[in-house]
Amino acid sequence: MASDRPVTIKDIARKFKCSPSTVSRALNNHPLINEDTRKNLQEYAQKVGYQRNSVSLSLLNKRTGTLGVIVPSLNHQHETAIIDGLQSVLQPQGYLMNICVSNESYLLEKEYVEKLLANRVEGIFLSISQETYDSGHYEHLESIIQRKVPLIFIDREYEGFEASRVTIDDYYGAFAATEHLIKMGCQRIAHLKGPQGLSITEQRFHGYIDCLRKYQFPIEEELIVSTNFQVESAIIPTQRLMELPQPPDGIFGVNDQVAIGAMNVVREKSFQVPGQVAIVGFDDSPISAYISPPLTTVRRPGKQIGAEASRIFLNQTKENPVTLENLVLPAALVIRESSLRG
Amino acid sequence: MASDRPVTIKDIARKFKCSPSTVSRALNNHPLINEDTRKNLQEYAQKVGYQRNSVSLSLLNKRTGTLGVIVPSLNHQHETAIIDGLQSVLQPQGYLMNICVSNESYLLEKEYVEKLLANRVEGIFLSISQETYDSGHYEHLESIIQRKVPLIFIDREYEGFEASRVTIDDYYGAFAATEHLIKMGCQRIAHLKGPQGLSITEQRFHGYIDCLRKYQFPIEEELIVSTNFQVESAIIPTQRLMELPQPPDGIFGVNDQVAIGAMNVVREKSFQVPGQVAIVGFDDSPISAYISPPLTTVRRPGKQIGAEASRIFLNQTKENPVTLENLVLPAALVIRESSLRG
Repeated sequence: MASDRPVTIKDIARKFKCSPSTVSRALNNHPLINEDTRKNLQEYAQKVGYQRNSVSLSLLNKRTGTLGVIVPSLNHQHETAIIDGLQSVLQPQGYLMNICVSNESYLLEKEYVEKLLANRVEGIFLSISQETYDSGHYEHLESIIQRKVPLIFIDREYEGFEASRVTIDDYYGAFAATEHLIKMGCQRIAHLKGPQGLSITEQRFHGYIDCLRKYQFPIEEELIVSTNFQVESAIIPTQRLMELPQPPDGIFGVNDQVAIGAMNVVREKSFQVPGQVAIVGFDDSPISAYISPPLTTVRRPGKQIGAEASRIFLNQTKENPVTLENLVLPAALVIRESSLRG
Repeated sequence: MASDRPVTIKDIARKFKCSPSTVSRALNNHPLINEDTRKNLQEYAQKVGYQRNSVSLSLLNKRTGTLGVIVPSLNHQHETAIIDGLQSVLQPQGYLMNICVSNESYLLEKEYVEKLLANRVEGIFLSISQETYDSGHYEHLESIIQRKVPLIFIDREYEGFEASRVTIDDYYGAFAATEHLIKMGCQRIAHLKGPQGLSITEQRFHGYIDCLRKYQFPIEEELIVSTNFQVESAIIPTQRLMELPQPPDGIFGVNDQVAIGAMNVVREKSFQVPGQVAIVGFDDSPISAYISPPLTTVRRPGKQIGAEASRIFLNQTKENPVTLENLVLPAALVIRESSLRG
């Protein structure tokens, strides 16, 4: 028993010179097993650390009570809010969640899908990685569908793929943020973009562009700069913006982090926020209301994405045939001091 | 084949009127299987979505390549930095990580331990929940040890339990933060405490108390208030502090979130930061350097915790008998403007 191989029912049966089925019945409190035998076997099983192999059992029972969640990263409050929303609905229903981080890698995402399917999860919630977008691969998603495991996209979806999804209207949120800056009297509105190729980057960018067009503002390349969503990545681009012959008087950041980084630079360059430069972020992260000046931002209901995705999953487990849902949640502008040019 | 039962080797064998072992060999590219048979079987297996049951296989092979990570929450940058550190070392080694969130619940933590063991993970990284501390339960941890699965505490440990651990010297960090405020000339230093019963709460609290004692400052109950780590939880307690007949001239927050919440209130009450009230946080979260004024804080090397825990795990997989390691990483004071009373 001292090896590190897990103890099996057969090991226990050998020890007690009885049949494996007797051991199994004793451990399951079968009425045909007498009290003493049951007690002895149960005590011994506990002593040697016998662990029922719930995976093998679940292959027979088809219920593992486990769900898979694959996200590209855990570095942003938005992703953890989605997970929080999933757990708040599904943990009380007895589901355990396996959270996997793809690190924006297609290969890791694919491996996690395979591993989750092999572990017989009952549903997969997926926010797809940047590489998966770029590569155009979706065979790993088809393998989920083929296995009749519910697949629900959370936040980052694969357009055109037949599965349910809960996303946020990023386009509208960005449009509203830009429109707000225009109404505040900004004439030159810069945009700190997200990384290339991501759907949320593109949608926010198009919301910004289309709003400028609607108000017949020129689109100026020099006012559109790239970041990687991290606060540090906004520093150098914003320095360049503020050193232009005609610096911007409004900045729309792709998220709160880069907006806060930009705010820092704008002030270092001795411009006033919001008097000379109005700033708007995106996410409504918890900190945004408490910095100085408090940040105008766009609220992304992360927790609600998780809760709605959970509801869709629970419906799908009951229905046959399944009705796919495509839910787009609104993103609300939250106006605070950083954009009020008075 | 249209049922939602996973396709098995037996199903494929029946279809091709051959033995299951032929199918198995074909799918594993066994040299005794002729080329055409192999190709036909592999194509068919792919078409019907046959998924090798890696769990059953792994019961024989004893290698699942999967590790479990259990954390109390994902709401703080510190936890996600630890996970990032684990992944940066272990994913390149071919390990996949199952991340589980206990929500500070002992029962969920226990269920996750059981599920991870049943799924035959090769190691468990655990930051224990508040309820587990409070309850004094550790049978679920013993079941990990009994199964000879490496258990490594990350950040929040179970004192006295025989397992490896990587923690941070929270006591020293809090002592250094308080000493810094004393050296800046603060006379009445308040502490925004974390939730009761957590080791990090207690260690930071004792660092604060022992430092006050060392410098023969009185311990004043009215200057010690509780928060739940969230930015919002600092608002009302700080309002009360600033309405005292003798408000504090220094505030040490248990983390950056509550320090930023406190900074907001202090200014709303028309006190200057740092001129009238110096503020120090804890964590060095990415945002802390970019708010105004930039926050003095204590750096917790979250990513390094993950990397060191990974190293210990990899060592334990090679060694027999295993040497337990107890690694305490230093926490460094990072001085910025919010505490410089000049």
